[in-house]
Amino acid sequence: MDIKQYVTKQLARTKTKKYEAYVIHRIIAKIDDIGLKFVTQQYVNRGEKSKNGKKFALTDLYFPQLGIHVEVDEAHHFSADAKEADAMRTRDIVSQIGGDDPIRVDTANTSLKEINQRIDSVVETIKAAKKSLPNFIPWDIKKEYSVDTYIAMGEIDANKDVALRTSAEVCNCFGRNYKRWQKGGAKHLDENGHPDENTIIWFPKLYENDGWINHLSDDETRITEGSVDQQKQKQHFEDFLKTGIKATRRIVFAHVKSNLGGVMYRFRGVYEVSEEETKKSGRLVWLRTSTTTKTYAKKPENK
Amino acid sequence: MDIKQYVTKQLARTKTKKYEAYVIHRIIAKIDDIGLKFVTQQYVNRGEKSKNGKKFALTDLYFPQLGIHVEVDEAHHFSADAKEADAMRTRDIVSQIGGDDPIRVDTANTSLKEINQRIDSVVETIKAAKKSLPNFIPWDIKKEYSVDTYIAMGEIDANKDVALRTSAEVCNCFGRNYKRWQKGGAKHLDENGHPDENTIIWFPKLYENDGWINHLSDDETRITEGSVDQQKQKQHFEDFLKTGIKATRRIVFAHVKSNLGGVMYRFRGVYEVSEEETKKSGRLVWLRTSTTTKTYAKKPENK
Repeated sequence: MDIKQYVTKQLARTKTKKYEAYVIHRIIAKIDDIGLKFVTQQYVNRGEKSKNGKKFALTDLYFPQLGIHVEVDEAHHFSADAKEADAMRTRDIVSQIGGDDPIRVDTANTSLKEINQRIDSVVETIKAAKKSLPNFIPWDIKKEYSVDTYIAMGEIDANKDVALRTSAEVCNCFGRNYKRWQKGGAKHLDENGHPDENTIIWFPKLYENDGWINHLSDDETRITEGSVDQQKQKQHFEDFLKTGIKATRRIVFAHVKSNLGGVMYRFRGVYEVSEEETKKSGRLVWLRTSTTTKTYAKKPENK
Repeated sequence: MDIKQYVTKQLARTKTKKYEAYVIHRIIAKIDDIGLKFVTQQYVNRGEKSKNGKKFALTDLYFPQLGIHVEVDEAHHFSADAKEADAMRTRDIVSQIGGDDPIRVDTANTSLKEINQRIDSVVETIKAAKKSLPNFIPWDIKKEYSVDTYIAMGEIDANKDVALRTSAEVCNCFGRNYKRWQKGGAKHLDENGHPDENTIIWFPKLYENDGWINHLSDDETRITEGSVDQQKQKQHFEDFLKTGIKATRRIVFAHVKSNLGGVMYRFRGVYEVSEEETKKSGRLVWLRTSTTTKTYAKKPENK
């Protein structure tokens, strides 16, 4: 996908609310900045912060480099029904925990002139936010979500926009050079290319799937791993009690659906198994110990 | 309809071509001129001028005050089938006969950057065209299509954007003060409020309807009036031969469907019956003798 396809596809999705397309198109046209990435209809985890008590929101316009969300009028309302919530969990959800409230553009009791003025002010806010970033890196669709980019960064941060298209690419951020990788996890090499038996690179689906019930807590600090099959669940847990877990540390890249379709592996952080929590809940519990981890290229082979 | 509804409804219609919404929204945002009216998906009569040999086009964006049309890539293609052509004739068609070619924005073999640059150049062209008009009147949706506006102008011009919502309003541009008018024509009063027996204000449907086949020639200079019923047609013609026509002059406001739905009466000009052409064709033939006519308010009643 090139930037032309990306930008027009994102804008074509703005059809939900009456004045949404007008507002979103106009903001993008007026910002007029090909180096500023935007996403429409972005699922957001707002943690406990959300005023209306809802932890999850769907914002109309999101600028990942700035962490800014824009809402046309009120937030989309999610029905409380579990089915919809489950469907949402399969999607790529951005964390806004502890972040600013979304910028709102009211279109309901305003004239076109007032909407236009509000948009101008929102555009100024966004431009100022970009200017205030000391190390703003212009968006380059060809370089984002690329192994080379993440290796060059030296470290990835779950609070930034870190995702890859395949699990092989994820492995290649940690000293591998895989063409393909099919399993749900991969062995980890340390920076020096030595096997790190204590760590696994994990590609979980953090929602119910294929008999597994994995769950990421709303504050994203805790992953629970379980099975719908009570027997399996019990076995899993008893194995843990008996032998412990060999690799107690996991670098987590969650399997998500990207908002334009297609699978992505989004970095969630580094998690370690908690014996105490696991015993308490009867399921494997992983707690986040870091939101960052180092990246490195494959070591040249010894000759 | 207020300007907020109008503008957003027009923009919501731009969904036909892949990059159309992007281009049209961006042009409107960048022109950023609430006094410049625009219409999306406007039917246009280009007379004989059209390069591809098609007289009728559907342009993506039209600025009535400037007579400028914008096309995203190639023109929409009309199938040659008669059914579609008939449907089109019921619509509001703008005359671009002898006008400039549409401005084109190519999106097919261009990068996003190039499209953006092209849009900037189109926006400059449009702004310059507005500046070059000595008597540009800013668009005011509350005043357009209003009897008061047309009376204040003193004269209306079929080559400008002249239309009204009801036939009563049309009558009121010529010295009446009707609340309602149901007939297909109305008696004419001259500027002094005296009956003008020679002229009728006519509200024809210039397409096949209810047994009538009225036809406006592609160059808009000729209206043919006839019936699908051969007997009626013959009678109509023989009446003309026998007694002549009492009112030989017609001020024509054609019944059309506006592009956002709803009926409009669009001024087409003043037409006079042609005895020669009528005898030649066996149908009543009206030839345009003027594209303008005077407007005036109702004379105050004598006390």
